[in-house]
Amino acid sequence: MGEDQIKRRTTVTINSQSYVISGKVDVGHIHEVANFVDQKMKEMRKISPYLDKTQLAVLTAVNISDEYLRLKKQLEQERQKKDGEK
Amino acid sequence: MGEDQIKRRTTVTINSQSYVISGKVDVGHIHEVANFVDQKMKEMRKISPYLDKTQLAVLTAVNISDEYLRLKKQLEQERQKKDGEK
Repeated sequence: MGEDQIKRRTTVTINSQSYVISGKVDVGHIHEVANFVDQKMKEMRKISPYLDKTQLAVLTAVNISDEYLRLKKQLEQERQKKDGEK
Repeated sequence: MGEDQIKRRTTVTINSQSYVISGKVDVGHIHEVANFVDQKMKEMRKISPYLDKTQLAVLTAVNISDEYLRLKKQLEQERQKKDGEK
C-alpha cells in the first residue's frame, strides 16, 4: 500500500517508440515489463526481419502469450499436485 | 512426441489480420494462443480506442507481459516455499 497505490504515468521506449504507461504498480516493474517486451521484439526481428512494425508487435504478443499460457497450465498442475499431496 | 513433433504452419486471425504461425506445437494450442491475443487486443481497444494498430499491439504485449512476469514470480515463490517445507 502507501506509495505503491498512487497512480503514476511512466514513459518507456519499446521498439524505438515512446509509450506512456499509467498504473498503480511501481515504476521499477513498469520498466522491467517494457524492457522485456523490447527484448522480445528484438529477438523476433532477428528471426523475421521483413515484418512490419504491427506484425512484429502482434507476433511478439503471440510468443509471450505462448509462454504465459504454458506457465499458467504448469502452475495449475503444480497446485493440483500439491493439493493431492495434502 | 509422434504427431506433435511435426512442424506445422497454421493460419490464425488476430485483430482482423492473418498470420501464419509455424511450430512443433499442436494446432489447438496455436489457436488458443491466437484467440488469447485477439481477445486482449479487443479489451485494449475498448480502453484506448484511438491507438493505431502498432501501438495497440505493443501495449497488448505490455499487458500480457505484466501478467506473465507476475505469474513467473509467483511460481518461483511457491517453489521456494515448497522447497523450504521439505
